Amino acid sequence: MSADHFQITARAGSARAGVLRTAHGTVSTPAFVPLASSATVKSLLPSEVEALDYEMVLGNTFHLFIRPGHERIARLGGLHEFMGWRRPIITDSGGFQVFSMGHGTVAEEIKRSGGGRDSDGRVLSIDERGVGFRSYLDGRDRFMGPEESMEVQAALGSDVALAFDECTPFHVSREYTARSMERTHRWLARCADWKLRSGPREQLLFGIVQGGVYEDLREESARAVAAAPVDGIAIGGSLGREKSQMAEVVDWALRALPEARPRHLLGIGDVDDVVANVRAGVALFDCATPTRLARHGTALVPEPESRWRLDVTSSAASESRDPLIAGCPCPACRDHTRAYLHYLARAKELTGARLLTIHNLTFMAALMSGLREAIRLNRLDEFDAAITSGAAPSWGDGPAY
Amino acid sequence: MSADHFQITARAGSARAGVLRTAHGTVSTPAFVPLASSATVKSLLPSEVEALDYEMVLGNTFHLFIRPGHERIARLGGLHEFMGWRRPIITDSGGFQVFSMGHGTVAEEIKRSGGGRDSDGRVLSIDERGVGFRSYLDGRDRFMGPEESMEVQAALGSDVALAFDECTPFHVSREYTARSMERTHRWLARCADWKLRSGPREQLLFGIVQGGVYEDLREESARAVAAAPVDGIAIGGSLGREKSQMAEVVDWALRALPEARPRHLLGIGDVDDVVANVRAGVALFDCATPTRLARHGTALVPEPESRWRLDVTSSAASESRDPLIAGCPCPACRDHTRAYLHYLARAKELTGARLLTIHNLTFMAALMSGLREAIRLNRLDEFDAAITSGAAPSWGDGPAY
Repeated sequence: MSADHFQITARAGSARAGVLRTAHGTVSTPAFVPLASSATVKSLLPSEVEALDYEMVLGNTFHLFIRPGHERIARLGGLHEFMGWRRPIITDSGGFQVFSMGHGTVAEEIKRSGGGRDSDGRVLSIDERGVGFRSYLDGRDRFMGPEESMEVQAALGSDVALAFDECTPFHVSREYTARSMERTHRWLARCADWKLRSGPREQLLFGIVQGGVYEDLREESARAVAAAPVDGIAIGGSLGREKSQMAEVVDWALRALPEARPRHLLGIGDVDDVVANVRAGVALFDCATPTRLARHGTALVPEPESRWRLDVTSSAASESRDPLIAGCPCPACRDHTRAYLHYLARAKELTGARLLTIHNLTFMAALMSGLREAIRLNRLDEFDAAITSGAAPSWGDGPAY
Repeated sequence: MSADHFQITARAGSARAGVLRTAHGTVSTPAFVPLASSATVKSLLPSEVEALDYEMVLGNTFHLFIRPGHERIARLGGLHEFMGWRRPIITDSGGFQVFSMGHGTVAEEIKRSGGGRDSDGRVLSIDERGVGFRSYLDGRDRFMGPEESMEVQAALGSDVALAFDECTPFHVSREYTARSMERTHRWLARCADWKLRSGPREQLLFGIVQGGVYEDLREESARAVAAAPVDGIAIGGSLGREKSQMAEVVDWALRALPEARPRHLLGIGDVDDVVANVRAGVALFDCATPTRLARHGTALVPEPESRWRLDVTSSAASESRDPLIAGCPCPACRDHTRAYLHYLARAKELTGARLLTIHNLTFMAALMSGLREAIRLNRLDEFDAAITSGAAPSWGDGPAY
């Protein structure tokens, strides 16, 4: 456990603004962390992600373990050097991906998947040691447990490692959820032990709260994780079938957590969810949605009634000379029309995926910047009201390209 | 025929440096023209293509006719406005694409294809009027002849239109080649008539020399095209089965052409071919190769023995911390290793296609800049000798991103 790695700089109700210090620099929180699951924020260069004002990206232990392999990345100088990203990196533990091969693919359970090809693989065994599975890439039998996950994350050299957990899906029983949670706690202890013995000194470790949609289990899990030698605490697993349940489930976990350590809400990235959970005290979010939606032709727009989504492939956009959002400084809005983006998305052109990725990440960066400022100015009520009634965030200068 | 649209500014042997003036600005020649067949240089923003020092791109009449349709592009303000590219555009006539559906797909004949999906369509009829075909997109019966091609190109509003031609493939007989060439000449007359009656005043028209690998036919075609009211002259069709035949075939055409008008060699873009044909007097080149190779994991490098190609997907690159080319200022070389590019290409990551596209276009831009300078300085022999013995071109500053 590293001292002084997280400072709270402002408070507004339960919301906190802060600074996370890592070996590769600082991250101002609350922050949205774009996925670089496969060692790239898909379609963007590292310099472009920096220019979009992101301070941290998320790499995926599972995907990088499969390809190109953590040993190779280590030989090439670690993940930062490998991908040319000099700022902080957090790595997912791989738990979600290996288990999602076994748990089926109910859409809402895939919220943390970075790959989309997991279903080609297959779980061969799950026991106390970890998970055996068949690689989606080459059909080889592979194994990942807490020690293997930590070893991979150490080889990658990420600034923040996540403990290996089972991300319990929604459809399993309370009994399964409880047993799984207890195993996740034992795995956390093994991750912490491995780190103490063999981990890179500067790597932070976040534990993950599980417990599904059960109040007592969430509280129990939060206390157990908080009692472990962890530098931050992530909240994972099912947050309910309905969005409305999320606030309750997150609150069960948060109220049992110490204030001093940063909280990371795994796999959540819808605009209203981010605003609500920042208000509840969450510091970090990662989510595939903004970038994945972009690659499938959906842009983030200030329209709460459509969940902040605009499908540019729909025929409504086909002859529109309007920008996605008037005033947005990103190149998609500054230089192009909805009609062009519609055409590119329909034709599955790389340039379309790229423009919408830049736009959606510009939107998320502006949202997070606005949230940080609203906390500093203690104007979170007004900010929340504006955003949830359809105002665009303040854009700032936008990326310099 | 527009007066003064092409000025020769320097000569070195048969090579000429010049300036082509169009409604959207000037193009310094000799120039390589990247393909924006489907209204985008795949994976790049227009501002990025500009930053790479390109002054003109090539749009494809056939692909844009099929999707999104020239009427829509016209309603949206024309192709420049539609794609956000403010500099000159030349449009291919669509002849190559509609005929390639009927002529089969011998690899070397596809050199001018921008799409790669032509084979899903099918030619229904070829006669004096033009070509009937089934759309690869929606199976609709469509028709394109000289007037239709000119009408589409007028609607697109390109700066340079190419006349509708049959790009005769290598495997057909002399008799077929001769009859096809004569029809291409009649089609050129109809294109010129259409332009005179209905074309945008500022659009330039280039005719296309055909005649296959037959000396008398090439000469006849060159004279016929030169005698037509055209602003420039393109050389199309088969240039031989072997590269060694290209110089001879191009020379048959060039020696019958007036010096005053720019010559465009269609679909040629290999480094040695570009150098040789600039020396022969060619002003403009377009070719899918640099950008298509990039999307399939091949980088341009100063290695004549491998045809200036490096397959980064090969295992030799898997752990190399070297850049593609030391000294190249592009972001792929400046910020990344061969090992990372290898990984991205193997994983078919968009970022890999993008980095290699930027690199290959940086290489071609530096090559063309070097050729223009060598003509101005009358040092073409030295430049040719250096490049063909494996020197890298002078890089300049590279793109500002």
